[in-house]
Amino acid sequence: MLQVSKERMTEKIQTWSQFGKLDGGGITRLSLSEAALEARAEFKKRVLALGMTLETDDIGNMYATYPGSEDLPRIVMGSHMDSVRNGGNYDGIYGVLSSLEVAETIIKEKIALRHPITVMVWTNEEGARFEPAMMSSGIVLGKFEKDVMLAVEEVGGGITFGEALEASGYVGDAKNRLNEKDYIAYFEPHIEQGPVLEEANLEIGVVEGVVGMVNYDIILEGVSSHAGTTPQSYRKDALRAASKVILTLWEELSKLDSELVFTTGEIQCKPNIHTVVPNYVKFTLDSRHKDPEVIAQVVKVIENLPKDVYGCKLSYEEHWGRKTIRFDDEMIGFVEGATKELGYSYKPMYSGAGHDAQYVSELLKAVMIFIPSKDGLSHTVVEYSSPEETYNGANVLLNALIHADQEL
Amino acid sequence: MLQVSKERMTEKIQTWSQFGKLDGGGITRLSLSEAALEARAEFKKRVLALGMTLETDDIGNMYATYPGSEDLPRIVMGSHMDSVRNGGNYDGIYGVLSSLEVAETIIKEKIALRHPITVMVWTNEEGARFEPAMMSSGIVLGKFEKDVMLAVEEVGGGITFGEALEASGYVGDAKNRLNEKDYIAYFEPHIEQGPVLEEANLEIGVVEGVVGMVNYDIILEGVSSHAGTTPQSYRKDALRAASKVILTLWEELSKLDSELVFTTGEIQCKPNIHTVVPNYVKFTLDSRHKDPEVIAQVVKVIENLPKDVYGCKLSYEEHWGRKTIRFDDEMIGFVEGATKELGYSYKPMYSGAGHDAQYVSELLKAVMIFIPSKDGLSHTVVEYSSPEETYNGANVLLNALIHADQEL
Repeated sequence: MLQVSKERMTEKIQTWSQFGKLDGGGITRLSLSEAALEARAEFKKRVLALGMTLETDDIGNMYATYPGSEDLPRIVMGSHMDSVRNGGNYDGIYGVLSSLEVAETIIKEKIALRHPITVMVWTNEEGARFEPAMMSSGIVLGKFEKDVMLAVEEVGGGITFGEALEASGYVGDAKNRLNEKDYIAYFEPHIEQGPVLEEANLEIGVVEGVVGMVNYDIILEGVSSHAGTTPQSYRKDALRAASKVILTLWEELSKLDSELVFTTGEIQCKPNIHTVVPNYVKFTLDSRHKDPEVIAQVVKVIENLPKDVYGCKLSYEEHWGRKTIRFDDEMIGFVEGATKELGYSYKPMYSGAGHDAQYVSELLKAVMIFIPSKDGLSHTVVEYSSPEETYNGANVLLNALIHADQEL
Repeated sequence: MLQVSKERMTEKIQTWSQFGKLDGGGITRLSLSEAALEARAEFKKRVLALGMTLETDDIGNMYATYPGSEDLPRIVMGSHMDSVRNGGNYDGIYGVLSSLEVAETIIKEKIALRHPITVMVWTNEEGARFEPAMMSSGIVLGKFEKDVMLAVEEVGGGITFGEALEASGYVGDAKNRLNEKDYIAYFEPHIEQGPVLEEANLEIGVVEGVVGMVNYDIILEGVSSHAGTTPQSYRKDALRAASKVILTLWEELSKLDSELVFTTGEIQCKPNIHTVVPNYVKFTLDSRHKDPEVIAQVVKVIENLPKDVYGCKLSYEEHWGRKTIRFDDEMIGFVEGATKELGYSYKPMYSGAGHDAQYVSELLKAVMIFIPSKDGLSHTVVEYSSPEETYNGANVLLNALIHADQEL
């Protein structure tokens, strides 16, 4: 089996860890920030040195291409280089650097491919500086209006996404956007961002899709009254009621399916004064599962919540959701085949988090490859995957790419 | 029985309702604001017109005095004229206006009293503009350092309490402060701020004291992780744990005593993002009861909370508390006697809320008189007590004062 260079893979991770480096470890490399531009410059320098052609599209996505032997559409691989505030050295960047290492191996080892190969970098996947997340893949796939996105102001106020993009020097031609004429297949390696692979002591996650999800706001409305003068029996305490509903959700949703995840991550309480009985509490419910039938059961649990909880009125609002995305079976087969051939232990799995690949899957044959995350952590400075793990993932990408090149 | 003028009592409420009036009803009359100075000017005009002598002390408290026939210490009655933001026309101001109406009745009806009588106005009881609440009575009773209080900046930033006081024109001599040489007894009429009198269809609350209280922060520490990628069984969700503890507190504390009140009014959740499992939740517990033994049981319930809740670490911090204050038995007797003589239905009760009277009770013989609050509401624009109820309370004050004048 062909293999990438472990030494080069590790060097790449170490080098990019300097761009936006924080004193206590980790990075802050917000999209189009100075640190992000340093990361782009290093990428540009290296792909040009490898003899690749670099194009950018009108929203700053970068495409570095190396020709194949036949007149075929490109196979593309990549991810993003931006991070959240106080993020780590693997989320996103690992997908770009493993793709770059695969390209470097193919070019230096003179591995003959029929298709051109492209290493790509998505602009602003995290949405940490300019909301929402997956902005550029969303624009390319028509999920978001470009003009609306260009006008988005950075979190906390300041310049717009459009202004930051213009100042970056990476604005290219809209015709360079990822499209189904020039491209045929998309690979995105990524850290798992969960504990499943590590806990099961597995080396690779063969990602079959991205789980569907629903998002709700659940609202309890009671009556505000004085903490000292209102007997308990007269109270309509919205925080007491919300506490009851949160525990009810845990009880009912836990019965549905062991792979279902659900989170009440955000809570707002009014007036939120220690001497006043709360009259209003709103909290969020995020729930995800690959099977739409299980998601339908989640919705039923929400619909069946009592409308009166300790005298408080319960209501809910559904926010955005997404349907489960199933990646391309042929592409999944290439990843699984390569993993087996390399002798790595693995697990077919769904991604719980959203990725650019989920949008791309509507355009091209797409798939993702997961490597383990230490303690399941991401979006934190302690995010970590070992040199062995980053190397394994790149080897799977290399060999899956060769399968795709031969069979597509 | 002697009685005040119902017409004048009602006119006073209506007149002072103009100072800081809001379009939708109610008032915002923050301490030493323009609206509060208008209220003070009207008070000054009226007491001088009645032939009373007006003094102020060094923190702007106002004392309007009418002489008695003997060389005896003064009997004082009053409350505060400042309100919270979007407050009502009864909390505080009712105590001042019923006292003023009682003085007006005594003076106009030429009711002969042995003691001088004083109607007083406390500066900044609410603490809504300059924290803390009960600032001036606290300074007079040595609870707060005057210099520290003068340096307190208004909520949201701006001028200090000292600067606002200086600009008000109401700074007088420190020797005019309420003291145990010049004064003998203190009455404070107030709205109940709770539903007990209204629910029991009673006209008067004979206030025997102010309940003791404890305040805690209860903290749950878990582990933050990704909403989409962390299986439920791995989670250490601080909001789930906090919800469990809130319900446990309701269950355990409800067993103690029917008159115990407890409130979890304020909650803080971190990181408070809908896609992240909360790793930190802090909420407040405020609990009040007149019997220190019951409060000791509350403390025991808190101490006995499990230290591990759904994998989250529980800890707590005790903040300030206060001991139960019992008012003077003789003064309680004067109020109860007057209420009975007037034929009003009543209930001996403790105040759940704090009042200037609780500090004054350490200096003088003190007592409070409650009238019903519609729906138990206060600190809101819909705060309401009927003309009949305000009249009844003033009548009780008048007759209790006469008893005090005769027997002290």
